[in-house]
Amino acid sequence: MENFFWHNPTAVIFGKDTVKDLAAHLKAANVKGVLLVYGGKGVFKSGAYAQATDMLTKAGITFSEVNDIQPNPLINKVREGIARVKAGGIDAIMPVGGGSVFDTAKAIAAGSCYNGDVWDFFTGKAKITKAMPIYGVLTVSASSSEVNNIAVVSNPESELKTSITSEFIYPKVSVIDPSFQITLPEKQTVYGGVDIIAHVLERVLDGDEGTDLIDAQGYAIIRTMMRVIPELIEDPKNYDARAEYAFAGSFAHCGILSMGRKARGDFSSHRMGHSISLMYGTPHGATLAVIMPAWARYLYEENPVPFARLGEEVFDIFDGSDEEKALEAIEALEDFLKDINAPTTLRELGIKEEDVEKLAANASRGESFGVLSKLEPEDVLEIFKLAY
Amino acid sequence: MENFFWHNPTAVIFGKDTVKDLAAHLKAANVKGVLLVYGGKGVFKSGAYAQATDMLTKAGITFSEVNDIQPNPLINKVREGIARVKAGGIDAIMPVGGGSVFDTAKAIAAGSCYNGDVWDFFTGKAKITKAMPIYGVLTVSASSSEVNNIAVVSNPESELKTSITSEFIYPKVSVIDPSFQITLPEKQTVYGGVDIIAHVLERVLDGDEGTDLIDAQGYAIIRTMMRVIPELIEDPKNYDARAEYAFAGSFAHCGILSMGRKARGDFSSHRMGHSISLMYGTPHGATLAVIMPAWARYLYEENPVPFARLGEEVFDIFDGSDEEKALEAIEALEDFLKDINAPTTLRELGIKEEDVEKLAANASRGESFGVLSKLEPEDVLEIFKLAY
Repeated sequence: MENFFWHNPTAVIFGKDTVKDLAAHLKAANVKGVLLVYGGKGVFKSGAYAQATDMLTKAGITFSEVNDIQPNPLINKVREGIARVKAGGIDAIMPVGGGSVFDTAKAIAAGSCYNGDVWDFFTGKAKITKAMPIYGVLTVSASSSEVNNIAVVSNPESELKTSITSEFIYPKVSVIDPSFQITLPEKQTVYGGVDIIAHVLERVLDGDEGTDLIDAQGYAIIRTMMRVIPELIEDPKNYDARAEYAFAGSFAHCGILSMGRKARGDFSSHRMGHSISLMYGTPHGATLAVIMPAWARYLYEENPVPFARLGEEVFDIFDGSDEEKALEAIEALEDFLKDINAPTTLRELGIKEEDVEKLAANASRGESFGVLSKLEPEDVLEIFKLAY
Repeated sequence: MENFFWHNPTAVIFGKDTVKDLAAHLKAANVKGVLLVYGGKGVFKSGAYAQATDMLTKAGITFSEVNDIQPNPLINKVREGIARVKAGGIDAIMPVGGGSVFDTAKAIAAGSCYNGDVWDFFTGKAKITKAMPIYGVLTVSASSSEVNNIAVVSNPESELKTSITSEFIYPKVSVIDPSFQITLPEKQTVYGGVDIIAHVLERVLDGDEGTDLIDAQGYAIIRTMMRVIPELIEDPKNYDARAEYAFAGSFAHCGILSMGRKARGDFSSHRMGHSISLMYGTPHGATLAVIMPAWARYLYEENPVPFARLGEEVFDIFDGSDEEKALEAIEALEDFLKDINAPTTLRELGIKEEDVEKLAANASRGESFGVLSKLEPEDVLEIFKLAY
């Protein structure tokens, strides 16, 4: 097990009808005005917007708004939020939404304490040294953004979807009320679920052999997700399944599964998926459902052990050589993705064949990357072709 | 899944040769003087004392000492520490040791910010509203005290071994260097291991049926401990096994395994064990090895499901009725305890038969307790007799 540092200061209020509990935290921090950050119809339909603004009003806290945050959130919305904060009267940022909204809020929180352009943090030109406090209400589980220190934002001008990571952008408090997710479209439950599973796979498949206990926790998350996604397709109102989904969603990418690893995980599939989302606006989870199996098929023969282990621990595959178990595990994963109506080819995503090279090139950006296996630009192109 | 609140602010520095990394945290917090709290020979043998004082000296931080903290730590040592702090020159408390030392440090940290007698916190006469910051170095994994907000202290005058819980007594930073534990006597590795397993069992056996994902994490901890304790008996210097042990030890009782439970767990065995430690000074883990199986045997027939589940998930017992699986699981647990040379009867602990009634009465204190099954004083007496 490798040395590591761990500090996740986010407080979580988890469960039904808990938005009102946020008021005490805001008052204790003497917050007088917040910037509400949200997307579109979803927060009205789920009731999260009503509950959040009601809570604020009762607590005597004023609010301004930045809304219409889209999946794969854009830097211009971050800049809009920062301008609002700099105009005054705001002590805290309050995302009400899913990962895109939380990510936007984090970037606003950091950018509001900086004099230059916030994109500088994403290019590495500037380092975050301070941020406004974030108090959020989660309405879509997938990214773990509600409990981690990462924000992913897209910049169409520079053709880049990339992330910042900073100890200053952990939310202070996140409310996770799984009942808000009952009104989500099925597709979003599926894509979010795939994202959650991918966050685990990108750790347990990184080839690190000194992390059995952490890996076991990861396998438990995958098994849970494979049980609850079909339950939620069957009955979207199943609160217990929503709660397990939300819990697994936060756990998967809060940092615990990276403890003691040589690398923090192998996020090759995320990187390749980001390239697709940037060009086509494809939902993040859909890109992962397509890319992860292709990535796995491309390199399992040279690295069968982690895939064989996944087969044993998640799919009860115990017979055969490691290579055979590995292939069977990848097939079982693909079967599961098909069963929950996730896309498994680029074609199904509506990607044009002539764009495949460009997508691969934009994922590589001339560099090699990857932990389990270093992927050269030509490997990435092969994976995209396999995914087509 | 039940609603819950989660906030664990402790930062962890985990791994080999990491005590020196504490200096940056102390300097950032402008700490000029600390109260070192430790036990006896162990910290000299392991090198932890030398590394901690060397780190402090190099950082220009002065230190006073309270030492000779014993297992099952006593309130008089807490009072001694508080007197030192109140004499001045101390900005932080630094435990260097195991659970007893951390627990003492926590009580000192809280008591130093209070004008009355610190025992008031333990009796409920006063509530902790403030505490000195704690920066610790762990040398014995077992209690998770290094990452939680609990302190257990004994008061021989009032014949009570009891605990405080407060958000203010989480350590700020804990260094967990598993290599300090290489010099531990085998008995301590065994007893600590039993304590860690008990922290998990007291959750997964509490009868809550809505916590599959968390339970799965608990089973993974037990399986890990059942693998590494024998490895460490075989080779105490095995760093990887020490690291897994330490990791599991912190994880087991940091609060995660209580998330979403109706109760925070069923700590009946801990309560009964405390009664033995108070009267006989018996190591905590040894009391648990004796009491847990007796507790399980006493009530599994009425509550077979959680024991049967344990059988499936930890001991690969898949055949038979739930009752049969439950009994087989309890027998497997007893076999494991015997294999690692843990005591499994009160007799082996040197308890006199005529004290059994008094031990039971002191555990009950006239009340019923327990989550899986409410234990009346007469039940507790039966469990103690069974354990004899």
